[in-house]
Amino acid sequence: MSDGFIRFGVARRAATNTLNQPRLCLYHSHGPELRRLDGISADQIDVLLYSAMKVIPLGTSSGKPTLKRNVSALAVAREGEWLLFDCGEGTQIQIMRAGLSPSRLAGIFITHLHGDHFNGLPGLLSTMGLDQRNRELTLVGPSGLREYIDTLTKLKTMFVTFHLNVHEVAKADELRPVYEASQYTVKTRSLTHRIFALGYRVDEKTRPGRFDLAAARRLGVPEGPLFGKLQSGEEVQLEDGLVVRPQDVLGESRPGKSVAYCLDTRPCEAAVELGSEVDLLIHEATYTDEFNTEAHQYGHSTAADAGRAAREARAKRLMITHFSTRFPDTEPLVQEARAFFPETIAAEELAAVEV
Amino acid sequence: MSDGFIRFGVARRAATNTLNQPRLCLYHSHGPELRRLDGISADQIDVLLYSAMKVIPLGTSSGKPTLKRNVSALAVAREGEWLLFDCGEGTQIQIMRAGLSPSRLAGIFITHLHGDHFNGLPGLLSTMGLDQRNRELTLVGPSGLREYIDTLTKLKTMFVTFHLNVHEVAKADELRPVYEASQYTVKTRSLTHRIFALGYRVDEKTRPGRFDLAAARRLGVPEGPLFGKLQSGEEVQLEDGLVVRPQDVLGESRPGKSVAYCLDTRPCEAAVELGSEVDLLIHEATYTDEFNTEAHQYGHSTAADAGRAAREARAKRLMITHFSTRFPDTEPLVQEARAFFPETIAAEELAAVEV
Repeated sequence: MSDGFIRFGVARRAATNTLNQPRLCLYHSHGPELRRLDGISADQIDVLLYSAMKVIPLGTSSGKPTLKRNVSALAVAREGEWLLFDCGEGTQIQIMRAGLSPSRLAGIFITHLHGDHFNGLPGLLSTMGLDQRNRELTLVGPSGLREYIDTLTKLKTMFVTFHLNVHEVAKADELRPVYEASQYTVKTRSLTHRIFALGYRVDEKTRPGRFDLAAARRLGVPEGPLFGKLQSGEEVQLEDGLVVRPQDVLGESRPGKSVAYCLDTRPCEAAVELGSEVDLLIHEATYTDEFNTEAHQYGHSTAADAGRAAREARAKRLMITHFSTRFPDTEPLVQEARAFFPETIAAEELAAVEV
Repeated sequence: MSDGFIRFGVARRAATNTLNQPRLCLYHSHGPELRRLDGISADQIDVLLYSAMKVIPLGTSSGKPTLKRNVSALAVAREGEWLLFDCGEGTQIQIMRAGLSPSRLAGIFITHLHGDHFNGLPGLLSTMGLDQRNRELTLVGPSGLREYIDTLTKLKTMFVTFHLNVHEVAKADELRPVYEASQYTVKTRSLTHRIFALGYRVDEKTRPGRFDLAAARRLGVPEGPLFGKLQSGEEVQLEDGLVVRPQDVLGESRPGKSVAYCLDTRPCEAAVELGSEVDLLIHEATYTDEFNTEAHQYGHSTAADAGRAAREARAKRLMITHFSTRFPDTEPLVQEARAFFPETIAAEELAAVEV
């Protein structure tokens, strides 16, 4: 995958939905790339044979941008929609470069109010306003977000046409849900930084079992919406009266995937809890251990700290990010983390990683 | 000039300054590029034989960025320092790309508080803070700027280590000065937009006459600081007792250059006054005349409006900018403006224009 995207497999139109639009009967999806296929939207899909969660770093520099790196932002994409974690200056451009559609953005989750993690917010919100977004958007972050939004609205800096569902978190000593979608949950817990900072964790709910196309055809289920009903757990009755139950065409249900996002923070127990047994722990690694005094003084972690956190959390993989401008090359950071946790990679902007 | 920069001419070290640092005796300068020559700073220069004002567009898109264009920002550079007009999201990256040094930035002038003209401000200010700037910075713009800065400071979004001299303008029905430097003045007057918006004009003071190197040498003036004294208007006494007067080595004094910056605005008399007989009028041209109803409804100008303003103002040249995303190619806008004012060019990001 040179560009990080999986290409589509089967995609065939059959029947129509209630709006008389063509529907896809079978589909291989990979996150927000749905729209790449003739403008197909998620509600036109009957049955997903393949689905993945994908992480796309949009900014990996700590404090300030460089000519090579943007400031903090990261997308977590699933079929049909995606979530944004942090929104540093320039994020809206990175979103364009990544080919992510702002209209499919479901929620923005800000870790803390240092500008390099959220100065891109008013621009992104206004651009969605100019583009006539009307779908509501959830915005989660530390207390102060509301005052920020209100000040910018009053000054006419922002132009927002849609309902912004602002959820301020004042305290999060324990892991708790902040956003609930039909197929996943986002939880938060506060980390340990110079100012109040939140870590996040996305947990997919249990996925239905694999859809057995051959079995469905053998039973005479016509390709189309009935496939979707079966996949979503409904019984269906065929024209000849036969009742097909979900368990006739679905395999064993599968555990959902999980991702944790822990920046900015000193090494702390909260990051370990957020990353507990996740498929991918995204953890800041601003410096190498050589600068650990500086790191901890400014509320940051070293690559060694990130590696230890991933090991302690029994994460499956670790992605380090939030690199100091001291490190134009991330290799020393990756090597340092790998000494504690071999399954470590460095976040690379616009390079999607499948979870 | 493929990259918009003039290369240096004569540059020779002679004598030392009071800190015992080498001084340049003769120098050809072109705006902020001084630093490109062995880290020479302005106070190490004795006499400028050539100096120019340069305009560097940093962002030319209206409303939102595109993959090719940033949102509004423009640098006006003179030897040793430069001014920034508007500061849309991403401006700090454009400053890096342009090779402009943030430490030489003397003042930021915001036209109005729509986000596409100033969302880049907190990031730029914080980056200068991280870089330990201590030189004070002037920030001029409409009322509301102070509240914005205060809110972001309270939320810990910004990290500013230097004195920020905020100058809010509540009303400017007549042209009036807002920033005075030793060699130039910046004036403002309000334009006609959907919200309160300011235009700006930079006027260099009268420049001293050309320094006559041959005459100075003939009179026996040694190359070094005495050249600078003569250029700045002081008499000097040579070792043999001879008194040399400035008029002995300087030609006729020369008029300063001028630039006006008029966006966002409907066509209005204020823009004509701001641009009166300027060397370069920078005027918004969001749309072609085909969209003039839309343009005027949203407080903007067409390219025809910009051309008419330049003609009426008797400007020497016109630079149009602030292009709607409808115009990936600026040629129709340039052609439209040229019908009214032939000396029209389109702003091109990072392409410096000498005034």
